[in-house]
Amino acid sequence: MPQWETIVGKNPVLEAIRAERSIGEILVAEGSQAGASEILEAARSEGIPIKVVPKQKLEQEAKGSNHQGVLAYVKARAYATPEELFEEAAARKEEPLIVAIDGIEDPQNLGAIIRVAHAAGAHGVILGTRATAPLTPTAVKASSGASEHTKVSRVPSLPNALLDIQRKQRAWVVGTDPDEGEIFYESKLSGPLVLVVGSEERGLSHLVRERCDAFVRIPMFGKIESLNAATAAAVLLFERVRQKAQPAKKANGR
Amino acid sequence: MPQWETIVGKNPVLEAIRAERSIGEILVAEGSQAGASEILEAARSEGIPIKVVPKQKLEQEAKGSNHQGVLAYVKARAYATPEELFEEAAARKEEPLIVAIDGIEDPQNLGAIIRVAHAAGAHGVILGTRATAPLTPTAVKASSGASEHTKVSRVPSLPNALLDIQRKQRAWVVGTDPDEGEIFYESKLSGPLVLVVGSEERGLSHLVRERCDAFVRIPMFGKIESLNAATAAAVLLFERVRQKAQPAKKANGR
Repeated sequence: MPQWETIVGKNPVLEAIRAERSIGEILVAEGSQAGASEILEAARSEGIPIKVVPKQKLEQEAKGSNHQGVLAYVKARAYATPEELFEEAAARKEEPLIVAIDGIEDPQNLGAIIRVAHAAGAHGVILGTRATAPLTPTAVKASSGASEHTKVSRVPSLPNALLDIQRKQRAWVVGTDPDEGEIFYESKLSGPLVLVVGSEERGLSHLVRERCDAFVRIPMFGKIESLNAATAAAVLLFERVRQKAQPAKKANGR
Repeated sequence: MPQWETIVGKNPVLEAIRAERSIGEILVAEGSQAGASEILEAARSEGIPIKVVPKQKLEQEAKGSNHQGVLAYVKARAYATPEELFEEAAARKEEPLIVAIDGIEDPQNLGAIIRVAHAAGAHGVILGTRATAPLTPTAVKASSGASEHTKVSRVPSLPNALLDIQRKQRAWVVGTDPDEGEIFYESKLSGPLVLVVGSEERGLSHLVRERCDAFVRIPMFGKIESLNAATAAAVLLFERVRQKAQPAKKANGR
């Protein structure tokens, strides 16, 4: 029997339909049909069963999440392997860009990082298990549907997974570090890259740090010490976009 | 009589003390003293009265916000004028960097933008009133305390305020626009700058757009159409940081 997960909210449900996830049924709260017309149309054209239910039933199934009157039962997605993320890059004929996540416990932050990774063209996200949230429905929702379009891998040991990548793949493993890192615009982010993102409070774990080939930092100009993890990831990933579009004239020896 | 506002949560209260806001009294929930020791120490050394109260009292005063056992009554801060933001830049002997906010209704997003602006060294933030949240306690909290260190101006008409800036100040007014803008790394963000940020759903209002000297955009590589406003602002503001550190060799005529 496959596992089913519950996806709530208009945007996440619509993205699940668009991503052609296997959807068992969509529930719509009585009175919410008009506001969900785009979803219902998409579901009908895909032949997905729709059931109109009392609002209380939806409240109960959504378990406190902000459901916006709509909910889908979706076949639980198997996590990808790290290798499959590199295969995705190869299939797209692009240099690999992977975001590895270490110690992000808040599913909202996790979803926000996945959104940013997807928007910047990443081929996938690797989640550690040390103090890192899995891809919960809250994370799916916080990703604004990006998790539906992004391969996500979950590994028992992120340090081991990074070691394996370093052995088998050609990729530069760069960790974020406010103290040790090179300033982002002086760092090399343009080639095959695994960007390792840690929590704003605790940073990367010791074992993950040992696997990094380099560190990168964002200089802070105010009295607040850091950006949140997703915002920092966005600055770094779009700096990569810039570096790829505007290669540095001077080779820096790497 | 001055107006008082309520600031809740450990970090915001600590930042309010550090920013030397005028604090009438700090309330701590019974049993939360140990976890708030840094705050209590700072408050004592500033001579701020501290009152230990039952948790219910704090719940009631915090009106549903996540108070973490601590709350401060702070004299309401007068908003600054846009001129004062430019004076702040002059006092720091820096080229002005102002973030103008148009149509951000969610105080969480507003706070996140203020956090990002502060981290990137902005001299202040201008809030319009059209569909834009004021600096509520929720926004203060979401800014992680950055709003305590950042001049905030609130103007009845953002288009008029921008026009006034264009008449009296030397500054380039750049709006964010996903369709019309120049790609961020090809745009000119390095001089005196007012960056105008709109909501991810609706963008900038027509009248605000008419006041922009240029538009800037962040290319999207995934299937999700935009970043959230604070994340987009971070990418653009730190691109400015890069451009100032690495001036383009070729003059672009501006």
